[in-house]
Amino acid sequence: MTIGMVRVSAVWAAIGLLGASLWGQNNTPAGHPGPQSDAALIDELVLANHILSRIGVLDAYGHVSVRSQRNPNHFFLARHLPAGVITKADVIEYDFDCKPVSGDGSQGYTERFIHGEIYRARPDVQAVVHSHPADVIPFSVTGVPLRPLIHMAGFLPEVIPIFEIRKAGGMTDMLIRDSSLGKALAQTLGDKPTALLRGHGNVVVAPSLHVVAGRAYYMMVNAKIQQQAILLSGGKVTYLDPEEARKAAGQDGFERAWTLWKQEAGAK
Amino acid sequence: MTIGMVRVSAVWAAIGLLGASLWGQNNTPAGHPGPQSDAALIDELVLANHILSRIGVLDAYGHVSVRSQRNPNHFFLARHLPAGVITKADVIEYDFDCKPVSGDGSQGYTERFIHGEIYRARPDVQAVVHSHPADVIPFSVTGVPLRPLIHMAGFLPEVIPIFEIRKAGGMTDMLIRDSSLGKALAQTLGDKPTALLRGHGNVVVAPSLHVVAGRAYYMMVNAKIQQQAILLSGGKVTYLDPEEARKAAGQDGFERAWTLWKQEAGAK
Amino acid sequence: MTIGMVRVSAVWAAIGLLGASLWGQNNTPAGHPGPQSDAALIDELVLANHILSRIGVLDAYGHVSVRSQRNPNHFFLARHLPAGVITKADVIEYDFDCKPVSGDGSQGYTERFIHGEIYRARPDVQAVVHSHPADVIPFSVTGVPLRPLIHMAGFLPEVIPIFEIRKAGGMTDMLIRDSSLGKALAQTLGDKPTALLRGHGNVVVAPSLHVVAGRAYYMMVNAKIQQQAILLSGGKVTYLDPEEARKAAGQDGFERAWTLWKQEAGAK
Amino acid sequence: MTIGMVRVSAVWAAIGLLGASLWGQNNTPAGHPGPQSDAALIDELVLANHILSRIGVLDAYGHVSVRSQRNPNHFFLARHLPAGVITKADVIEYDFDCKPVSGDGSQGYTERFIHGEIYRARPDVQAVVHSHPADVIPFSVTGVPLRPLIHMAGFLPEVIPIFEIRKAGGMTDMLIRDSSLGKALAQTLGDKPTALLRGHGNVVVAPSLHVVAGRAYYMMVNAKIQQQAILLSGGKVTYLDPEEARKAAGQDGFERAWTLWKQEAGAK
Repeated sequence: MTIGMVRVSAVWAAIGLLGASLWGQNNTPAGHPGPQSDAALIDELVLANHILSRIGVLDAYGHVSVRSQRNPNHFFLARHLPAGVITKADVIEYDFDCKPVSGDGSQGYTERFIHGEIYRARPDVQAVVHSHPADVIPFSVTGVPLRPLIHMAGFLPEVIPIFEIRKAGGMTDMLIRDSSLGKALAQTLGDKPTALLRGHGNVVVAPSLHVVAGRAYYMMVNAKIQQQAILLSGGKVTYLDPEEARKAAGQDGFERAWTLWKQEAGAK
Repeated sequence: MTIGMVRVSAVWAAIGLLGASLWGQNNTPAGHPGPQSDAALIDELVLANHILSRIGVLDAYGHVSVRSQRNPNHFFLARHLPAGVITKADVIEYDFDCKPVSGDGSQGYTERFIHGEIYRARPDVQAVVHSHPADVIPFSVTGVPLRPLIHMAGFLPEVIPIFEIRKAGGMTDMLIRDSSLGKALAQTLGDKPTALLRGHGNVVVAPSLHVVAGRAYYMMVNAKIQQQAILLSGGKVTYLDPEEARKAAGQDGFERAWTLWKQEAGAK
Repeated sequence: MTIGMVRVSAVWAAIGLLGASLWGQNNTPAGHPGPQSDAALIDELVLANHILSRIGVLDAYGHVSVRSQRNPNHFFLARHLPAGVITKADVIEYDFDCKPVSGDGSQGYTERFIHGEIYRARPDVQAVVHSHPADVIPFSVTGVPLRPLIHMAGFLPEVIPIFEIRKAGGMTDMLIRDSSLGKALAQTLGDKPTALLRGHGNVVVAPSLHVVAGRAYYMMVNAKIQQQAILLSGGKVTYLDPEEARKAAGQDGFERAWTLWKQEAGAK
Repeated sequence: MTIGMVRVSAVWAAIGLLGASLWGQNNTPAGHPGPQSDAALIDELVLANHILSRIGVLDAYGHVSVRSQRNPNHFFLARHLPAGVITKADVIEYDFDCKPVSGDGSQGYTERFIHGEIYRARPDVQAVVHSHPADVIPFSVTGVPLRPLIHMAGFLPEVIPIFEIRKAGGMTDMLIRDSSLGKALAQTLGDKPTALLRGHGNVVVAPSLHVVAGRAYYMMVNAKIQQQAILLSGGKVTYLDPEEARKAAGQDGFERAWTLWKQEAGAK
């Protein structure tokens, strides 16, 4: 049975590579292979929660998830607690409909449908972050495009799609509360590594937890620097050439950043 | 007697609900029920002081209060110490005229009349914050309206009233030093959850300490993001639609944020 | 002899009050009486160094001094070490010519002449800060006047004098390296509580260490908020009315802020 | 043999002084003599890594190096780890071709060629920093020149060269991956103390680790203040006069800042 699962997982990895090639403008980072069991994956997810909280990507309300290695139709996500405080016991296994297939029935995040629908639509995606970074949100409400400007943010697409929830759901409380809104968001995301949610935040996806953390962080850094550059110059800014961005997209899979963040988070 | 008090309190809660319905553009958040005794309420007030100090809402001079459960004509507020350092022993019980009905006669905050007059005028209000956030104050002196922009700040009214102390008190030292200025401020606040004080700060009110903390915090976040959006775009900003704001106003009663802040403050 | 000193000190205090009344647009804060011996004063100076370092007023290069109680022609200032690391043993007693009258001959701050010449020219001044705050310096190089905007900064004069070292010393290394430059700076300061040094920083003076710390801190806060207000509105900002500023100048002598800062600095 | 090395080193120091005089617009700071053995130099390099990480100059990806005392054709640089976590055991000795002449063959920084080629081209340089400061990068992509504005940044040249990697290498991943790109960067740097890398960061060079740390730090501070001054005034900013900058360039060799940073980093 374990063998069967491995087989499925291998097939899935192939699909993942295919998916990655569809990104067009974004290389898959070399990265490191990542945990090889779900138990190790859950440990890393807990660490990712603590790291993303520490480096200012996740406030009390954002979340990060990872796809199961054993069953690629499932993913792991904490119950409705702030990222900074979760432990292994708080992690729930979900199917794509965001029904828990493990756990004690604890309440989940209201917006878990972001994760379920992205994993369903994007077999290449292994990890998803949903966050509300103050430096990024202005680009979701102004028509000023967030674009790859610094060498660490070559993974940003030339055009970042913006999810306008009014189109998908009319007048709402702004939250992705069900599969229908989750599907609409996944559709807006398309084959891209990130999308903005108007007046709300972003989603960032990647082939691993290390890469999704690096992308979510350097998207914030790029946003902050781009904004300052626009104010300083009235908008006359030299961005990365699309070819430069493509070549710079992978970097080191953000491995060196992860090394630092892991040590700062007090992990062994 | 305890029964009588409970009865009074229940009647008051009904009035509170009525008051809440008068807000018109702001839902009452679901929240959690809150402490059921004044002793527990005072513990939570001390914690709120520490939390609001830690998250940058209260500097050395701001303050937070809560209405008594036992006697809705009374409220609890620390003596004239910085929020970050107060203990249970520093909490004083006041009547609406801001005369202490407990305590050792220690000096109170000069501006305690903000609290007394708001509790008098607003039976729906259970908690009040007065703070001086750097990101918020620019909106009090520029004529540029602070408006609900992010999904966590739907509670902000479409028009935030601004208290111009010159109208109420002529040339002053800017402080709400007596009941007369307190009343004028309460009148400016009207049925809204917040008002700005020109060149000074804001007041934020809510049906509980958890909600008042969340509102005071996310008002700062909204102000910071709105300011960046205005600079980035020259002012072409997509705000929350009034209906979106109304629907998003309640959120989770900021319970998840409180959970994080409580843990970070080292509370059990 | 001790009696004689006390007498001198009392006379001096009277002169100080006279000097304060000359400020015209700035009230003397009520404050607290302050240390009554030079030993206690030196303890408080060490604490002021640590506090001002902690709250971001003093970087590695700024300094704070206090006038001697025993001999009003002398003042105390640390030797050439960063404010954050000094101890009682590092404090030197200087005369107005900035010659040490105590200590082991350790090197002093290059710019100690700022202090000596201000104490000589301003008998009302008991404490002096020289700092380099990033939020304040833009107002020294742009012609945009820093003005009292928030209620905690009423002590700021309507026009803050700017010291242009080129007028006093031609082309220099920008430092106040001798009594001649110190005198020119003191002359620019005049009877005001603060002056800016172009491309360099500021000096802040006050009748006590508590007040000089509060003024130096809230000058930074006012500068930050004023800058944001100007950017947000294109410059249409409602400042404090001069009469409001005059009335708000004293506040509580910044005693509540000092209480907080002292506790945060770990002092008893 | 030790004698011979000392002799070489002395000759080299003379060349260094010559190189320094070629800078034209930048004085050599007095500074302190620095470590006199490579063992002591490596200890100081480890400390510089920790300090530069703590004060926000180096993120997970920046690096700092120092030229060997024993062999001026060699330099020391950590292996590919974040600056904040390196230890003595991580330091590798390189030749100008960036081939390790010590160590266990651990992977080096991809961009070590920045260091090798600058040491080859600039005998006066003893220490090199490559960093990615958010406040500095906007000046690399806007055509707005970063100029000496504050007294601590007189070392900045009147015109800071900007390295456009497209001219040297066409479409790249933005990294200085080989000696050829390193040489092109060194050529852009010329005889200056710093150069910007478009959309990437900067290099800062100096006659010692203390001075390179101070320059890298105060370049950030100057950038931040200059940007605020430009926004505040629409660009009407009084910069340091070139003669003032020349005179202020040396300061105290940043010794007082180093004293503070060393203590904050917990070093003895």
